[in-house]
This record gives sequence, C-alpha cells and structure tokens, in this order.
Amino acid sequence: MVTKQEIKLIKSLNQKKYRQQLGLFTVEGVKGIVEFLNSDFKLNRLYTTEQIFDAPENQTLEISENDLKKITSLKNPNTALAVFEIPKSVEADKKGLIVVLDDVRDPGNLGTIIRLCDWYGVKDLICSSNTVDCYNSKVVQATMGSLTRVNILYVDLREFISNYEGTVFGTYMNGENIYTANLPNEGIIVLGNEANGISDEITSIIDRKLTIPQFGNSKDTESLNVANATAIVLSEFRRRTIER
Amino acid sequence: MVTKQEIKLIKSLNQKKYRQQLGLFTVEGVKGIVEFLNSDFKLNRLYTTEQIFDAPENQTLEISENDLKKITSLKNPNTALAVFEIPKSVEADKKGLIVVLDDVRDPGNLGTIIRLCDWYGVKDLICSSNTVDCYNSKVVQATMGSLTRVNILYVDLREFISNYEGTVFGTYMNGENIYTANLPNEGIIVLGNEANGISDEITSIIDRKLTIPQFGNSKDTESLNVANATAIVLSEFRRRTIER
Repeated sequence: MVTKQEIKLIKSLNQKKYRQQLGLFTVEGVKGIVEFLNSDFKLNRLYTTEQIFDAPENQTLEISENDLKKITSLKNPNTALAVFEIPKSVEADKKGLIVVLDDVRDPGNLGTIIRLCDWYGVKDLICSSNTVDCYNSKVVQATMGSLTRVNILYVDLREFISNYEGTVFGTYMNGENIYTANLPNEGIIVLGNEANGISDEITSIIDRKLTIPQFGNSKDTESLNVANATAIVLSEFRRRTIER
Repeated sequence: MVTKQEIKLIKSLNQKKYRQQLGLFTVEGVKGIVEFLNSDFKLNRLYTTEQIFDAPENQTLEISENDLKKITSLKNPNTALAVFEIPKSVEADKKGLIVVLDDVRDPGNLGTIIRLCDWYGVKDLICSSNTVDCYNSKVVQATMGSLTRVNILYVDLREFISNYEGTVFGTYMNGENIYTANLPNEGIIVLGNEANGISDEITSIIDRKLTIPQFGNSKDTESLNVANATAIVLSEFRRRTIER
C-alpha cells in the first residue's frame, strides 16, 4: 500500500520547486521506466501493479490499480510509476552540434526537441533558465526515453554563448536560406520562444541568422512550430555531413 | 445571451457525429476566427465578447465572458467562438506534392501536419477515413489558420493511391536514405499511424520506401514523431526544387 505521505510526496513532484528541493522526478509507463532503469539514472522507488521490472526488490513496491490512480498524473496510467533522482548535469564539452533553447515554454515542444537531439546525435541541449523544466512529467513523457541520452543544462544563455568559440546560428524569418547556406559540422543552433522567437539580448550575440524558406504563397501562414523548425534545421546540418 | 439550445448545439459540435450531421464546426480565438472570416469558409454564427470582427451583424451575437465560458472547449477562452460551415471538399488535382495520412490519430499531429503543408505549399492533404477529423476543435486550434489554405479529403486510401499515376513514396525504418535518394517534384508521400506506421495494405502499393537516417547511435531511440517526420520529408522534397 502507498502511504498518504508517499502520495503527497509524489504529487509534490508535479511542481518544479519540489523537484528541485528533493532532487527527484517521476517517470510513468513501462517503456519509459525500463529505459531509465537501463541508464545511469538512479532509482529512488518503483511503484508497480506488476512485477515485470528488473529493479532492486527493496526499492520496488507492488501496488493496486487503485493506488496507482492515486499517484499518477496521467488520465490512463500504464502499470507503473517510478521516482528517479535528478542527476547532476555534466558540463557541455562544446564539441559537435549544440542545440540552445531561448525560453521554450511548451512541455510537448521540449520533449519533442529532446527526442530530435537523440535521433540526430546532438549530445548537449542548453536551455535558458526560463525554458520549461526537462523533469516536468509531460516533458519526460514526450521524450520517450530520449532524456536518458541527451545531456541537458539550464544556464545563463548570454554567458554560455559568449564563452563559445565556434559559430552561433539562430533561426529567424529574415536570415540566409538554410537550404543554400554553407553549414559547418559544429556550432551552436539557437531556437526561440513559441510566440516571440529569439530574444533581442541573445540576437545581439548571434553570428549567422538562418531561415527555413516558405514554399506556400500566403502571407497569413504562421511561422513553423519550434519543434518542427528544430527537426528541419538538424536535418539540414546533418545531411551536409553525408554529402561531404 | 446564449440560449440553452445554442449551448447544446455548440457543445454537440465537439463530436464528429454531430459535426457531420449538422455540417458545422467551431473555431476559437481572435486570430483563427479572422483567418476563417477572410477565407472562403461560410460563417454560421459568431459569439464574441468584443465587437472587433468584420462579420455580418445579423450573424454576430455579443455575449458575456460568462456565456463564453459556457460554450468554449478551451481552458482559457480568447474573446470569441465562431461556428462555420464545413465546406464540400474539392477533388484533388493530383499535381505537385500530395501528402497522404494513413490513420494518424493525434489531433495535435494532424494540426501540425496541416500547418506544414501550408508552409511547404502542399495543396492537397489526403486522409484515410480513420484519420482524426480535421474539424475536431483541437485540430482546428493547432492549424493556426492553415486549415483555410489546405484542401483536405477523407477517402478510401487504397482506391485513391491505386488511381494515382505518379510515384508513391512512403516513410519506413528500412528504405532508401532520403538525403541521397533521387526525389522528383511531384508524387504522393504517405505517412503512417503514430504507433504502427503505414498499414500492410497500403505498404503493398507503395512504389518507393524512404528513410530518415538516425545519426545518434542508440538502438533504443524511438522513431521520429509523425509530424517531425513530415517536416523533414517535405523539407527534403522542396529543397531539391531550389537546387535544380
């Protein structure tokens, strides 16, 4: 049985404040939990309705479906919920492609971007401190396990970018056409906030502005969603490494 | 004031059955409504808390914030809700790039794909009959107005594809590398269901299988989300038209 105290603790992890205070976050669903168990993340406690995990017995609690409903933050919980420790971030090694997010707010977008970094072999994802927390349960859910393979840092962006020695790219509506631009193997790629794009402060330290050109002819078309923009930009950078 | 009957009617439009029966759907928020008003879509009735729209008076009802809360399907409604008529679909002209969806279920994914078609100048989006309804309010919301610029048809996919004379592409895990494949200006691109990809039935009538190669080296990485895959595939097809 899950105690009232445990329910309260797990529920509190829905808030960033408590995740940071306690250094813990939750993962739900079989596939996600298995990926975290197979990674370097440290398990705190596993609550499961079925004994199907390869996890230490003294950290595993078999619970009822009813108990699972009390601790889940999903509409349709799937078998188990695990609490893991938030690891210390590793400093970025500043080699290869680095994705930088300036104030991305939507958990689904961040989750998808983490998954794209994993697919395209981007090891370091750097976030401004006001970007949504990557241990938010909706982000963890959307990453489909990719969170275990991408190193994510929350930093002072201005400072991070200023100390970087390579080329700093940003995505804008009025930059070089990304399809014909000369793109290196390494560099920082900055993507901006859903509504406002990249802030003026960060724009002032961007080296090269890139644009994904529009092929439709309506002036009313909204700019691309930040996760789709990330997909296309990473696709373009990586494609060039094949052709060379 | 909004009558009880009107509330009931508007609420019923959250269900595909009633949308189809009544031939009506809802649009929420100022920007979206303005785009639909400026398009060929026919307004049925506009409910707004502010008189800021260029719409016929006899079809506009000024309502209170409280009334808006009664008819909205959003947590935070924005100024107005409009009911529009579902237009008759126009037959696809079978020229240029055509995107075909085989059983895409998530409203956010369909909305994003419609937006991508708009950006990349794809005029016709063909959906299998079990793909989520494009007049679902979550889809309408996610398209950010692009629904007014893309012609969407729900058809028997097998029949549609069989009658098509050009090349039929599909995205798979084991096809030609899309970055080095020879891609024409025209063709059908099929994208599949979130969990199961393209069905066996449709796979049997695909001419060429394409793959977005993985650059990260983990075997555990999930395949890309269908909206991101669409972004990358459309980007690759359109890019080639620049280089020629």
